[in-house]
Amino acid sequence: MSPPDDDSTLALRRVEWNGSAARSADDHVAAEAPLEIRIGGVPIAVVMRTPGHDEDLVRGFLLSERIARSSTSIVSVRHCAEVDHPDAEDNVMQVVLRHAVDLASLRRNLFASSSCGICGKASIEQAMHHTGKVEDTIRLAPTDLYGLPGRLEAQQAGFAATGGVHAAALFDTSLETIAIREDIGRHNAVDKVLGVASTEQRAGAVLMVSGRVSFEIVQKALACGVELVAAVSAPSSLAVGLAAESGMTLVAFLRDARMCVYSAPHRIQE
Amino acid sequence: MSPPDDDSTLALRRVEWNGSAARSADDHVAAEAPLEIRIGGVPIAVVMRTPGHDEDLVRGFLLSERIARSSTSIVSVRHCAEVDHPDAEDNVMQVVLRHAVDLASLRRNLFASSSCGICGKASIEQAMHHTGKVEDTIRLAPTDLYGLPGRLEAQQAGFAATGGVHAAALFDTSLETIAIREDIGRHNAVDKVLGVASTEQRAGAVLMVSGRVSFEIVQKALACGVELVAAVSAPSSLAVGLAAESGMTLVAFLRDARMCVYSAPHRIQE
Repeated sequence: MSPPDDDSTLALRRVEWNGSAARSADDHVAAEAPLEIRIGGVPIAVVMRTPGHDEDLVRGFLLSERIARSSTSIVSVRHCAEVDHPDAEDNVMQVVLRHAVDLASLRRNLFASSSCGICGKASIEQAMHHTGKVEDTIRLAPTDLYGLPGRLEAQQAGFAATGGVHAAALFDTSLETIAIREDIGRHNAVDKVLGVASTEQRAGAVLMVSGRVSFEIVQKALACGVELVAAVSAPSSLAVGLAAESGMTLVAFLRDARMCVYSAPHRIQE
Repeated sequence: MSPPDDDSTLALRRVEWNGSAARSADDHVAAEAPLEIRIGGVPIAVVMRTPGHDEDLVRGFLLSERIARSSTSIVSVRHCAEVDHPDAEDNVMQVVLRHAVDLASLRRNLFASSSCGICGKASIEQAMHHTGKVEDTIRLAPTDLYGLPGRLEAQQAGFAATGGVHAAALFDTSLETIAIREDIGRHNAVDKVLGVASTEQRAGAVLMVSGRVSFEIVQKALACGVELVAAVSAPSSLAVGLAAESGMTLVAFLRDARMCVYSAPHRIQE
C-alpha cells in the first residue's frame, strides 16, 4: 500500500541490514509533532500527535477529558497564527468555549509533555540544548544486535502472562545486561532500567525497547548518555530527527536477524 | 509460562468467545495503577505504571527528565505513608534531592495524568463521580464484532506504510462507521474519532482500538457515552475495573473470530 498523501508520514533514507548484508533504501516513518492546546490564549496541554485532523483531535480531547461539557459548549477550535517559533504555526490550536473553565486546575490534571516551543524542530533544539552530542565509543557487529530481542523476550514474564506490557533492556558497552524491566507504560519500562543503572552506578550504552520508539524515548536515552537505541518496532519522525542531531544510533524493526538503521550507522560494522 | 509472582498482574474471570461458542475462564491482566512523585512534599507528576520496581522507576524518571542533575544528587526515594486514601500508600513516592528545583516550572513541563487520588480505586471512584453508568441499549452478535478489526485494518494506510501508528474506529448503535483515524499516540486516535462524532452530532456506541486498552482509553470512552470498547490486544487491570464499575462492555484480543469479554458480557449474544 502507498503511504497516505498528507503530513502523516515522512520520507527518509535508512540502512537496511539483512543478516550480514547492508544496503541503503527509502522509507516512510510516522510523523510526530507536539500540538499545544490553548483555551482563551492559555496553554493547557501539549500532546505528541501525528499531524492531521487536528480540529477533530482537539474537539475529542476537550470532551473526553471533560473540559467541555458538551459539543455545543465548544464555540470554535482553530489553528493559532500568533506563535513564537516560525515552524510552530501548524502546532498550536486555540479553543473558545461557551463556559468558563478553571485553568489552574486543568493545568494540574491534564497531560502535558516536556516538549516546548511547540514544533518538532524547536523540541529537538531544546533537547539538544540540555545535552549536546552523545559519546561515540561503541562498535557493534550486526549479530551482536540480532541477539538482543531474544534476551528481552526470555525475561518477559508479564507479556507471556497478559500480552499487555512493554519491556525495556539496558546493556553496557560490552552488551552485559544491566537490567530488563516490564511495564504497562513504554516510558516507565525505560525509566526503570535507567533507574537500575543509576543505583548501581553503571553506564548504559545500549537501550532496547519491545515496541515502537518515539521522541520521548530518544530524549530519555539522550539524557542518560545512551549511544544506541534499538526497537523491535517502528520509529517516529521526531525520534529519528533527535537521534540524528545528537549522534545517537537509532535501530528499528530489529527482529529475525534483520534491522533498519535510521541514524549514525557507523557504530554497526560487519 | 506462569504469571510472575508479584503485583504486576491481576487474576480475574473473563468470557472467552471462539466463533459462536462462549465459556467462562480464568485470566491474568497486566496491573496498572497511578504513581504520584513528590519532591519535598510537592506532587510534580503522576505516571500510570505497573506496580513494582517503583524506586527504579522514580530514579530513572528523575534522571531521564533532567530533574536530578546526576545519580549523586538523589538523596533518597521512598514510599510515602502520609496519604489521603487508605489504598494509596503504595502509590506515592517521596523524593529528596541535594539541589533545589524550580517546582512551578517542573509542574508545567512534566507528564501529569488526569488520575487523582493516587490509587486505582480512587481513580475509578473519581471517573465514576463525573459520569455514572453508561446506557444499556445495544445487543450485538459475536459475528458483528468479528468483522470490526477488518474494517479498521482496511483503512490503516499509515500503519501499512510505517508500521508505527495506532488506529481507532467509532461506530454508532447500528455499527455504521462514524470515523476511523490513525495517530502515533493511542489516546489521540481515540480523541480524533470522538471529535468527528461531536462535529457531526452523532452518538458513538462502539469504540474499537488497534492496540491495548488502558484505563485512560476507557475513561475517555466513558466521558463520551460509549457502551462497548473493543481492542485487538490486551486490557489493563484498571481498564477492566472502570469498565465493570460503569457497566461498559470491555472486549479484548478481538481477532480471528475470537475475543475475550471482561465486563458486562450481556451485550453480546449469539
